[in-house]
Amino acid sequence: MNEVDFIAALRKLPLHPGAHDLRDDNATIGGLTVTTDTIVEGVHFLPDDPPGDVAWKLIAVNLSDLAAKGARIEGVLLNYPLSSDAWDRAFLDGLRAALDTFGCALIGGDTVSLPANAPRVLTLTAIGRDAPAPLRSGARAGDELWVTGTIGDAGAGLRVAQGTPGPQALLARYRRPTPRLAEGFRLAPLVHAMMDVSDGLLIDAGRMAAASGLAVTVELAAIPLSAEYLAYAGAGLAAHLAAATAGDDYELLFALPKGDEPPVGALSVGRFAAGSGIALTWQGASVPLPANLGFQH
Amino acid sequence: MNEVDFIAALRKLPLHPGAHDLRDDNATIGGLTVTTDTIVEGVHFLPDDPPGDVAWKLIAVNLSDLAAKGARIEGVLLNYPLSSDAWDRAFLDGLRAALDTFGCALIGGDTVSLPANAPRVLTLTAIGRDAPAPLRSGARAGDELWVTGTIGDAGAGLRVAQGTPGPQALLARYRRPTPRLAEGFRLAPLVHAMMDVSDGLLIDAGRMAAASGLAVTVELAAIPLSAEYLAYAGAGLAAHLAAATAGDDYELLFALPKGDEPPVGALSVGRFAAGSGIALTWQGASVPLPANLGFQH
Repeated sequence: MNEVDFIAALRKLPLHPGAHDLRDDNATIGGLTVTTDTIVEGVHFLPDDPPGDVAWKLIAVNLSDLAAKGARIEGVLLNYPLSSDAWDRAFLDGLRAALDTFGCALIGGDTVSLPANAPRVLTLTAIGRDAPAPLRSGARAGDELWVTGTIGDAGAGLRVAQGTPGPQALLARYRRPTPRLAEGFRLAPLVHAMMDVSDGLLIDAGRMAAASGLAVTVELAAIPLSAEYLAYAGAGLAAHLAAATAGDDYELLFALPKGDEPPVGALSVGRFAAGSGIALTWQGASVPLPANLGFQH
Repeated sequence: MNEVDFIAALRKLPLHPGAHDLRDDNATIGGLTVTTDTIVEGVHFLPDDPPGDVAWKLIAVNLSDLAAKGARIEGVLLNYPLSSDAWDRAFLDGLRAALDTFGCALIGGDTVSLPANAPRVLTLTAIGRDAPAPLRSGARAGDELWVTGTIGDAGAGLRVAQGTPGPQALLARYRRPTPRLAEGFRLAPLVHAMMDVSDGLLIDAGRMAAASGLAVTVELAAIPLSAEYLAYAGAGLAAHLAAATAGDDYELLFALPKGDEPPVGALSVGRFAAGSGIALTWQGASVPLPANLGFQH
């Protein structure tokens, strides 16, 4: 089954009130915010990615979901497939670095053995508290769509990891993403809706619009690109479109009433309106949608 | 690395106070009890096990950890690898059956794709509340060791699943274990220590003794065996030893002060004393330890 059909089938099962009908990356339970992500070797990371970077990314992608709720970090549970001494030790080094960097504690977990040559499958569950942010479904017609940081660096970094020459700064954005925790704390009480950009700005903007029952228009020229990305990919429509459809950015995407200025570094990249679907413009002129809006599982 | 070394390394990372130094199957956080288990195709279940039974078992093994704390079930998060329509639909049927049977709700989760031919890896995280049971480390010298239900059925059922002729009742114990939730509620306020028997009675009794800083002696002849198991495996020392070292029972193992009678069906199978390690007797006479005390990951 594909992800959409499977989640639709899950919605027919008994759901917890805090599951938010499985329409958000976070669940709410007893004052806590819970999120979980699984990453798979050969799908979400490359077999030759350094194990310490895999550990970092596993932590970062989950904390990024907590950041999107403005949650304080309580800690994480790790489900880990034991492998070689060298891989496991390097993984532990990266795990320590990420936990220290983000002020995060280990709560528990499970270890398993995999059959020989099976791709590694790692799960992390992150728990936070005091999460004031509304769901991704809270955007209102007239709201502006904003995004923190720069977009597309990780997608370009993936191509560098795969062997295309390019700047190390892009590779670092792919391998050691930074969850926008501080930004999330400050934005959470102010926004109408917030989520992290994990699968691509366009696909995630479309998801926020769909969850909110609205249409969204994204101005591709407004999407913030880094100097490294511009040097690597150029500055035209194609480069902006590639950035907007690449995954793994872990920036925050949020809806604010028109005229409000966010208290963190961010750029307005679009507008919500009554209706449905996503539309693109390039310097104000309509642009056809690309075949893929982002990373599809 | 092996599991023991890896968990020892994890203990050197920043730990949450509710992690109980990673010495229990459950963590405590904000009044909630959290446990997580991963099961792997070819390791924890057979590739030709019915998908609905895999779903059931995934739920049951996690709820069994909540049962060992006497927790009320809040719900579960599922990390699921999408596969064929037929497998996924049969899994969903078993998931619904287990959720309905145990009065459990879905809180959230994540779906991923695996590379072609990769063994399925499934994770469930179960959350409970109001868990009065002490840790597995609470046993005291002089306490008796008790176990609910019958032991060894699931281990024999695994051999039936692998093709050895045997009763369907044993196969059912292997494929659709029952977490002892009602027993856990009643026992939790009374016991000094409690855990579920997941890897084998002997290995788990040894873990409870080690966590409590005690020695334990198990009387093999006292281990409760079902009529089906006795008919299948015979009644001698070898049959009791096989039952006591087989996994997947999901009965409750608990320590009570000498003389106390538990309010649920259970049998006394051993005694804690000052010291360390596990010793075995058969009708009162000392018996050497087998090479394997249970399922080792």
